[in-house]
Amino acid sequence: MKKMINGVESLLEESLNGFAKAHNDIIQFNHQPHFISRNKPTKQGKVALISGGGSGHEPLHTGLVGKGMLDAACPGQIFTSPTPDQMIAAAESVENGGGVLFIVKNYAGDVMNFEIAAEMLDCEHATVIVSDDVSLPKDHSTGRRGVAGTLIVEKIVGAAAESGASLAECKALAERVNNATASMGVALTSCTVPAIGQPTFDIGANEIEMGVGIHGERGREPMDLVSASEIVEHLTRAIDEDLSPPKGQKVLLHINGFGATPLMELYLMYDLAAQHYQEQGVEVVRSLVGNYTTSLDMAGASITLTLLDDELTVLWDAPIHTANLRWGC
Amino acid sequence: MKKMINGVESLLEESLNGFAKAHNDIIQFNHQPHFISRNKPTKQGKVALISGGGSGHEPLHTGLVGKGMLDAACPGQIFTSPTPDQMIAAAESVENGGGVLFIVKNYAGDVMNFEIAAEMLDCEHATVIVSDDVSLPKDHSTGRRGVAGTLIVEKIVGAAAESGASLAECKALAERVNNATASMGVALTSCTVPAIGQPTFDIGANEIEMGVGIHGERGREPMDLVSASEIVEHLTRAIDEDLSPPKGQKVLLHINGFGATPLMELYLMYDLAAQHYQEQGVEVVRSLVGNYTTSLDMAGASITLTLLDDELTVLWDAPIHTANLRWGC
Repeated sequence: MKKMINGVESLLEESLNGFAKAHNDIIQFNHQPHFISRNKPTKQGKVALISGGGSGHEPLHTGLVGKGMLDAACPGQIFTSPTPDQMIAAAESVENGGGVLFIVKNYAGDVMNFEIAAEMLDCEHATVIVSDDVSLPKDHSTGRRGVAGTLIVEKIVGAAAESGASLAECKALAERVNNATASMGVALTSCTVPAIGQPTFDIGANEIEMGVGIHGERGREPMDLVSASEIVEHLTRAIDEDLSPPKGQKVLLHINGFGATPLMELYLMYDLAAQHYQEQGVEVVRSLVGNYTTSLDMAGASITLTLLDDELTVLWDAPIHTANLRWGC
Repeated sequence: MKKMINGVESLLEESLNGFAKAHNDIIQFNHQPHFISRNKPTKQGKVALISGGGSGHEPLHTGLVGKGMLDAACPGQIFTSPTPDQMIAAAESVENGGGVLFIVKNYAGDVMNFEIAAEMLDCEHATVIVSDDVSLPKDHSTGRRGVAGTLIVEKIVGAAAESGASLAECKALAERVNNATASMGVALTSCTVPAIGQPTFDIGANEIEMGVGIHGERGREPMDLVSASEIVEHLTRAIDEDLSPPKGQKVLLHINGFGATPLMELYLMYDLAAQHYQEQGVEVVRSLVGNYTTSLDMAGASITLTLLDDELTVLWDAPIHTANLRWGC
C-alpha cells in the first residue's frame, strides 16, 4: 500500500490537525471527542445542522462546515461510523436555541449511532436520512445508501437554516430534497483503506463496477469497460427511472469524482449527461463538477440529479463559506 | 488503460465542451482555435493575462480564467504545448488596450510557441517564464520547470491587473512572485497519458519518485517509500535551501495534489509542513490545499512556498471568480 502517511493509527488525527490549521478562519477542531465546528457564532435561534460519517469521503463532511452549510461535522475513522459521544458533544457545542438537525447518510452504523445520540440529547432535535443511491432498489432491506446527494441536502437546508427556517421546516425541506435527488456511480478501480492495506474489491483490468457504493461496496454488476457515452447512458437511465423528470423540468446536475479521476474526465461526463438531459427536454440550470464525495483513491464518478423549483434554486445559490466549497462571500 | 472517455482523439474537445457548459456564467470556449476566455468584458485599459500549456493539469489553467485571475487560457493536447495560433487568437480576443502578459511555464515547447506568438502580436505585450521547481539545479541547461507556483503567479498578478497595474508593473510583479516561490513534488505512482495507454514511468511497489515533474518526468531520485514526515522533510529541505526564509518571514504554504491523492493525505502533509515552518520561526499566514496543478491520475503531491509581504498578501486575498477557484465574490 502506497500512502503519504505516518501510520494508520495517527492518520485521521494528523489530517484533521492540518485541516484545522489550514482553515482556522472558518472552523475549529475539537479533539476529545472529535468534531469540527464553525468558529464564528451563529444567529440566536438558528437551527444547527450536524452531519458526520466515516472519514475518507473528504471534502464531505468536514470541508462543508461553515456559513450557509453545516454547523458541525463528526468524522469517524475511515469508512467507520463516528460514535454517539462525538455527535452529542457537537450538538451541545453548536446548539443555539433553534434545535439540532442531524443529516445522516443511510448506513446501518451511522443511523444507529446518530439515533443513540438523538435519544440522549436534551435539546429539540430531528434527523433526516439521506438515501439517494438508486443502484439499490427502493425496497432494499436496509434502504438505499446515502451518497453524493448528501452534499445537495446539506447545501440547500444549510441556506434555509441560515435564513431562519424552523427545525420542522428544515427537516421537511431535507426530506423533500432527498426525495428529489437520485445518484448512481461507477468505479474503474477499487480503493485501499489504510488499515486494510489492500484494495477493497477485485476488479479486472478491463472491467468496471456499475452502481458501486462510496465505501467500495460492490455495485449492481461488473461490466466490461465501455465508452464514456455508454457509462453515462447507463447511469442516467437508472436515475431517470427513479426521478422521471418531465419535459421542462429544471434540474441541478452534479458530477462527482471518487478521488482519482481527473477533472478532464469529469467534465467530459458532464458534457455527455448535459447532452442527454437536453435531448430529454430537461433543463440543467445549475451544476457542480468535482471531487466532493470521494472514496479515498477510487477512480470513478457518480452522477447526481436534483429536481429544482424556484425555492430550491434560490437556496442553492445562497452564499456559502466553507473550507472546500465557497461562493457568494 | 482505464479511462472514462470516448476516444483519445475526442477527449480534449469533449472535456472542454463540458467545462464550457458547466461554467457558462464565467467563461466561453472558442473552438477554432481552442481557447477559453472570460465571457464578461473587462475594464478598458486592463492588462490581459493569458496562460496555457498542455492539458492534463486541470484546473490549471482553464479553471483559473475569470475575474481577478486569467483573461484567457490556451489548452494544448495532453502534456503537449498549445500552438501559436491559439495564443494569437486568444490575445486578439481579450486585449483591451492595456497590452497582453503571457504567463508561461518553463518547458521548451511552451516557451518556443509563446515566443512565436509574441513576435506576431500587434499589441503591446510581455512574457514571464515561471520556473519554481527546485528539484532541478538553478543552472540546469533548460532552466527549472514551472509547476504549482504558476497558480500563485497567476493569482497575484491577476489581482494587480484587475486593480489597474500597467503591463510593465504586471511583468515585474510576476517575476518577483516567481523568484519568491519554490516548489518540489513527490510521486507515488506514475500517470497514464491516454494517447500512450501505459504509465509514463515505472515505479516499484515500495518506491517513490522524489522531485518528479508534472508530466511524469522522473525526479531527482527514486527512493524507498518513507513516512509522510520524512517526505515533507525532504521536500521542505530543498525548498528552504532555495528560498532561505528568515525567521519572522510571512509565507503562503500551498500543498498541491497531483490528482489521485486523497485530501486526507494532503491535509496531513499540510500539518507536517506547517509544523516544520513553525519550528523554523516562519509564519504561515496564507494557505491553499487541494488538487490544483495535477498530472492526470498521478498519486503524489508537491509543496510550494511563497515569501509574502503586505502587498502580495493583499493581492492574494483579492476577490476571484473562476470556475475552480473562487473567493470574495
